[in-house]
Parts: sequence; structure tokens; C-alpha cells
Amino acid sequence: MRDSNNKSVSVIGNGNVAHSLIPSIISAGYTIDYVAGRNTDKLKAIANQHNLSHTTDYSKLSSNIIIISVSDNAIESIVKELKTKPNQLVLHTAGSVALETIKQHHSHCGILYPLQTFSKKRILSFRSVPICIESSDEKALEIISNLANKLSDYVTYLSSQERLSVHTAAVFVSNFSNLMYTYGAKILTNHGIDFNILRPLIQETAQKVMILPPVQAQTGPALRRDTKTIELHQNQLVGKMKDVYLTLTQWIQEQFPST
Amino acid sequence: MRDSNNKSVSVIGNGNVAHSLIPSIISAGYTIDYVAGRNTDKLKAIANQHNLSHTTDYSKLSSNIIIISVSDNAIESIVKELKTKPNQLVLHTAGSVALETIKQHHSHCGILYPLQTFSKKRILSFRSVPICIESSDEKALEIISNLANKLSDYVTYLSSQERLSVHTAAVFVSNFSNLMYTYGAKILTNHGIDFNILRPLIQETAQKVMILPPVQAQTGPALRRDTKTIELHQNQLVGKMKDVYLTLTQWIQEQFPST
Repeated sequence: MRDSNNKSVSVIGNGNVAHSLIPSIISAGYTIDYVAGRNTDKLKAIANQHNLSHTTDYSKLSSNIIIISVSDNAIESIVKELKTKPNQLVLHTAGSVALETIKQHHSHCGILYPLQTFSKKRILSFRSVPICIESSDEKALEIISNLANKLSDYVTYLSSQERLSVHTAAVFVSNFSNLMYTYGAKILTNHGIDFNILRPLIQETAQKVMILPPVQAQTGPALRRDTKTIELHQNQLVGKMKDVYLTLTQWIQEQFPST
Repeated sequence: MRDSNNKSVSVIGNGNVAHSLIPSIISAGYTIDYVAGRNTDKLKAIANQHNLSHTTDYSKLSSNIIIISVSDNAIESIVKELKTKPNQLVLHTAGSVALETIKQHHSHCGILYPLQTFSKKRILSFRSVPICIESSDEKALEIISNLANKLSDYVTYLSSQERLSVHTAAVFVSNFSNLMYTYGAKILTNHGIDFNILRPLIQETAQKVMILPPVQAQTGPALRRDTKTIELHQNQLVGKMKDVYLTLTQWIQEQFPST
């Protein structure tokens, strides 16, 4: 162990989450000993950006805290490969991977799951990102809580099961909403209209549910049972898009029974 | 006609759009002679709020511009009932109703469609609301352009057909996205978790497409073909929600073929 104040960190991963996590960890006053991963070029890019050491050799990682920040389906193999000393704390940042997956190989472990959509092009401060934590033991909880509370103003303890539910809900509000944006853009492209015209609406639709619960924010022809407008819309659409529109309209009407 | 500068307006309607439109029209320097509609109590409420006259008698409306701001399926009957003089300009604010619907009864007419989601609880300035205009003739175009440009920084001329496409796309990015928020909230409620935890994600998901085209903003297990995570999510869900998740996952995979 390099120091005893539990503030030395190594990060495994150079993906979307890692790109925002690393500067946030540094801002929180922690020292990053290494950025580790398999792809040397990508590692170099992120390490140079923050003046950090990088390695493809996980056996070099002697930090107090090792954070595995890779996509959900890549965690298990890293957890197996990684050799740690009993005092080293192993965390991952994934929504759908149970604590048990780490615990089988590293008894002192936990989760630091930032509930947000990250991309390399848009570095986000963790300050307003909700962080869901979980821990194998009291000591781990203390270390994770300290780190999480220095990173974010919104830290919640969730079980692996609860975290999986949150992750599932996140897919709906983020991935599936973005699919709806994609469909909207596609309809406009078919008519040669600039996507810009929809942007204020997208922003306000999201803004509304910052205050209201979404059930109170629902509007539109499906909710109003305005069959004439629904028919006009459907006639605008061709092939698959017609089916998609109809299915979503039915789902709204099932979710919001007419009174 | 009360004046010759085309700045006297009557508004028919007291719904979500009218509640934001009326203060924006006043701010733009126009005079509102009357707020008209069928429900006296609702009329009184909106008229008193802005110190305006109100009436249920459409024959009183002698303003240069009459704006029909009611839901799409209520416009036709008002258009038929309304009697105008040749110089009076009749506009409506609906996305899906063709110019022809007005023109059959009022030859001097047009459209002023604000592309936004409105509610009485959230009064919006029209300044950043895209307005789609259309007109029956050159004179109408001049009057509508003047008004629209005083209301908003983003005015576009669209045909009825184009406007219907935009309205259809708007249903996707707004009504259908809000359905996704509703599903997310439902999943959390089932697990006793506060919806607040999803709010920063919703905001950032919308924020991302203010810069990127939605096709570039798509993330998540469906896009990554991460079948393990997809299966974990599905196992979280019961009944209808399981089908909904699966269908949306398939739609993403059809929309974004793996490379």
C-alpha cells in the first residue's frame, strides 16, 4: 500500500465512464497511481490527458482502491484475472453486475455506480451524478462512502437487486427515449426538415419531468383519444414506422386508461 | 376593424397553448381585444389573469387577427361557426390541421403552430419556441410573419403536409419519450425507489442531442448486443413490461444494425 489514508486509486478502463470518472476522482483530492487496460493506444490517450501512468499489467496495481470501469459484460473476466492483497478494495461502476461477481474473487469489495449516460465527447462532472454504492463490509462501506460523497452530492446505498432495477429503468428513460429522438429525426429527414426544429421540444419534455411526475406530464393525441389526429399521423408514416407509432399509441392508452 | 396596423388580436381558446400564447402576444406589443371560448369559468380565469375582456359570443370578435388556439379536433367546428369580414385574418395553432380546413370558410387565413409541449402549470415564453407558419396569400404571410417574428426567434414556413410530418415527429420525441419516463418511474415505484434518482439521466439524455444527432447519442445494452445484461433486465420485469422492453430492444437493433 502506498499510503494509509485510502486515497490512492487505480482505474481499469478507458471507456465512456472512465473518461469522466478520472478527472472527477482527481478533483476529489485522490491520487490516481495507474490507468490500466488492454489497449495501449487508448490508455496512452487518457493517461497523457491527465498526466498519469498507464499499464497493461494488472499485477502492478498496488493502490488502496482499484476501480474497474469497463462495460458490464467485461467485468467478470477482469475480476478473475486481477490479483489483490486483502486490504485492497475492488470496486466496479456497472449497473447490472452483482456485488457477488467481485466478492467471489476479492472479499473486500463494493460498487460505485454512477447513474448517468457518459460519452468521451462530453466530459461530465460527477457532482450532480447520482451514485449508487454497495459494499462487502463496514470498512469497505466507509471507504466507498468517503469517495462517493467527495465525488457527488447524491449518494444512495442500493442492493445489487435494487441497482439492477434502477439500471433497467435507466434503459427506458435514456436508451429508449433516445430511440424516440432517432425516430423523430428520421421522419424529418424523410421530409427534408432540419432536426433543430425538434430540439426545444425535446429539452422541454425532459424539463417538465424535473418538476412533475411523468404520469402528470403526458400529453398528445394518444392520451386524448384523438383518433382523427392519430390517423393523420399514421398516414404520414410508411412500413415499420407505422407499426411502431401504432404500438406506442396503444401502450400509452393502456398505461393511461381513459376516464 | 379597430385599427389599421394589424395589431389587434382575439384568441379563441383557454387551453394549454392559449395560457402561454396570450402573455407572449401581449409582450410582443399586440392588443388582445377578447379571449373567447365556451366555458365561462375557464375564460374568466385566463381573462382576469391578464386583465382582458372575455366572451362566449364569437360574433363580437372584430379584431384584425383571430387566433383559434384549441385542440386539433375542435378546430373545424369553430372555423365553421365563426363569421368573419374579408379583411379579418383567421389563424390556428394546431400541428395536424391543414390550412384548407380554415380556407374553406375564411379565405384570408394562416397557421401559427408553436412546436412545443405546453401546460397551464408551466407558462413558457414563445421566444425560444419554434413557430411554423403558413398562409393563404401574400398579405396574410406578411401579417403572420410580423407576429411570429415578434413572438419567437425561430420562425419557419412549412406547408400543411410538412407541418403534419413535424407534428408526427413531435409525438415521437415528446409523447413517446414521456411514456418511457413513465415506464422508468413505474419500475422504480415497484421497488420503492425515488424517481429523483433518474432525473439527472433524463436531463442529460435530452441535453446530449442538443449537440449530437440522436443516431450518434445511442448507448446501452441493446446497441452493444449485450445479451447477458438484456436478459438480466428482462428478468427484472413482469407481464406487459417484459414485452415492452423486448420490443424496444428489437427496435433499437433494427434501427442500429451491428457493424
